[in-house]
Amino acid sequence: MSARPQNVHQARLLRLLRDEGPRSRAELGDVVRLSRSKLAVELDRLVELGLVEGAGLAASRGGRRSGIVRLSPSLRFVAFDIGATSIDVAVTDGTLEVLGHVSEQCDVRQGATVVLERALELLGKLRDEGLIPQVHGTGIGVPGPVSFRDGMPVVPPIMPGWDRFPVRDAIGQELGCPVLVDNDVNLMALGELHAGLARSVDDFLLVKIGTGIGCGIVVGGAIYRGVSGSAGDIGHIRVDDDGPICACGNAGCLEAFFGGAALARDAEAAARSGESPALAALLETHGALSAEHVGEAAAAGDPAAVRIIRAGGRHVGQVLAGLVSFFNPGLVIIAGGVAGLGHALLAEIRSVVYRRSAPLATGNLPIVLSELAGAAGVVGGARLISDHVFSAS
Amino acid sequence: MSARPQNVHQARLLRLLRDEGPRSRAELGDVVRLSRSKLAVELDRLVELGLVEGAGLAASRGGRRSGIVRLSPSLRFVAFDIGATSIDVAVTDGTLEVLGHVSEQCDVRQGATVVLERALELLGKLRDEGLIPQVHGTGIGVPGPVSFRDGMPVVPPIMPGWDRFPVRDAIGQELGCPVLVDNDVNLMALGELHAGLARSVDDFLLVKIGTGIGCGIVVGGAIYRGVSGSAGDIGHIRVDDDGPICACGNAGCLEAFFGGAALARDAEAAARSGESPALAALLETHGALSAEHVGEAAAAGDPAAVRIIRAGGRHVGQVLAGLVSFFNPGLVIIAGGVAGLGHALLAEIRSVVYRRSAPLATGNLPIVLSELAGAAGVVGGARLISDHVFSAS
Repeated sequence: MSARPQNVHQARLLRLLRDEGPRSRAELGDVVRLSRSKLAVELDRLVELGLVEGAGLAASRGGRRSGIVRLSPSLRFVAFDIGATSIDVAVTDGTLEVLGHVSEQCDVRQGATVVLERALELLGKLRDEGLIPQVHGTGIGVPGPVSFRDGMPVVPPIMPGWDRFPVRDAIGQELGCPVLVDNDVNLMALGELHAGLARSVDDFLLVKIGTGIGCGIVVGGAIYRGVSGSAGDIGHIRVDDDGPICACGNAGCLEAFFGGAALARDAEAAARSGESPALAALLETHGALSAEHVGEAAAAGDPAAVRIIRAGGRHVGQVLAGLVSFFNPGLVIIAGGVAGLGHALLAEIRSVVYRRSAPLATGNLPIVLSELAGAAGVVGGARLISDHVFSAS
Repeated sequence: MSARPQNVHQARLLRLLRDEGPRSRAELGDVVRLSRSKLAVELDRLVELGLVEGAGLAASRGGRRSGIVRLSPSLRFVAFDIGATSIDVAVTDGTLEVLGHVSEQCDVRQGATVVLERALELLGKLRDEGLIPQVHGTGIGVPGPVSFRDGMPVVPPIMPGWDRFPVRDAIGQELGCPVLVDNDVNLMALGELHAGLARSVDDFLLVKIGTGIGCGIVVGGAIYRGVSGSAGDIGHIRVDDDGPICACGNAGCLEAFFGGAALARDAEAAARSGESPALAALLETHGALSAEHVGEAAAAGDPAAVRIIRAGGRHVGQVLAGLVSFFNPGLVIIAGGVAGLGHALLAEIRSVVYRRSAPLATGNLPIVLSELAGAAGVVGGARLISDHVFSAS
């Protein structure tokens, strides 16, 4: 087991150095409100544990020059971001700066053993590059509901072969470090909290629109998971009883209107009906259509593609308007593959939310596209496990 | 100003004695993890402040008998629960036991000055009964959005003459004690947390269906208010674009289907169309119909009244199903005047939520009617201000 802080002061110092970077002892003392001598004791202990090191002297603030401290440059966190059709593996330093990141197509339906093996192989590549002297912790995201306490997926609808697979314990044993497992959307929200547009926002929502549609909920700077870990499962909120039948068996769920499968269905219908020559051409070339193709056709000015995006944005907006009235967030971030559809999508979502939510809830509410794109999940994974490792043991 | 605890230990002791009642010093020491001597210092200080007093000796636990302490019996909290059409004033002791409670019809549209004057008169009655040696704090609920920080209503739709009226400061000056102002639904949720079905639940929702429809959100045992204080404003969540036009200008809001006005509208229509002889008779007697009349007719077996209740329950259920998927609460409590419609309403709400919410979110989810009825708001008001008074100053 690698070193952990021994009290709340040490934990606070580590998180401060992670989030704010190197600081002088004088600056740290101001923030954590410890006497000079108590601070020195805690920092000395963190140096002994190999978590912190000295880094020269700060400019004078009038008296003796204060020593600068920083997180040990050999600290490493690992993140696996497992999506429905992709796998991302990254390694960060103690400040969660991404040092290496590999990504490839991968079908989660191959099951836990195959997919986790592949994640470990990709990690091996980063290790071969000399990026990973040791691993202090690993954060893992999966595209389905997770029992956070047990570290495993629970009845995940699009992950056959993963139900109750002990992901945390298996990877913990393999890597010999603390591991936490969470829903992929929660990781993206943590990524935005750490390095994205939500850095200074305590209460916000991240809506991921991809193969499925989910929502990460941050309350007071921490993920809100709900009593059974399923909070944010918004893909099956009802939009319209007369809507398409959803894979869940109900009619008119949000995902039945605008998940990955619904988007492909609508795009292929527009291609086949002759409504969209652009989508028809893409369908002929690729044999099937996806969100990227709709985005491509829309960017080229295809009216049918724009219509599909606007209709999807309207349905997302209808659900989101209710959630904004209910939750009164400080920020809404739209992310995921479909977010690549860009500003036509965003404009439609905004239009519905600003019109339909409670006025007090939207007065100062920004609704924005994620700027982190693929990095949100892995930064969030590193943030998740670093919050755990940098807490008093 | 009355006395306040001086550190977190004292605050914790006060809350413990409030929530659990008199305790021996030995028991308190076990819970707050203070040494015997440190505990004695803190308790002595609370006794000096007049907040706590000794109450005899506990049964022996094997050694010397431990002294019992309790909150001072002269502690008093006051609560004003101002509704759209009613006003409740109560006084509690330090454990939030209601010692006196007066309630009367009162139209909030008379404006802040008239209504608050009347609340103070009602408090005077309780004072005349000798119930209030002094006031340690007052919690006030109003039926509209509140800036909690500023202690005043903000653009409240059904409260003309209240916008930005400094309720907290006016009453604080009048009574010479700390005052907090919140939305009435938040107070009800706090009441349920303190004395109702939510006592052991950290994350839950209280849905109030009355003149308006609102939701109190409790996260981690505390009210979640959102970034601008409007969280839980669910009355204008869209149910159906083809629904009735709402007072807010949009079509098909939840309140347009099932607020107090919508219920009266539907009941009077059923009376006038001849569909419901029972409601027609009530309309003739009273000149107008309300939720109570619909409940009365339904209890007498009137099919039209039952139909109206079931339709209302279905619409509430449709909105609540989405919120349950999103928030994954441990409990949902239905309260407010319309909750008096009872089990036909509850059955319909449950049926929709259990069918339409994410299965993981409803696995262990109780949906229940409030058992506190009219007391929830005033107990919640006392809880709100006692949390404040019993915190380290």
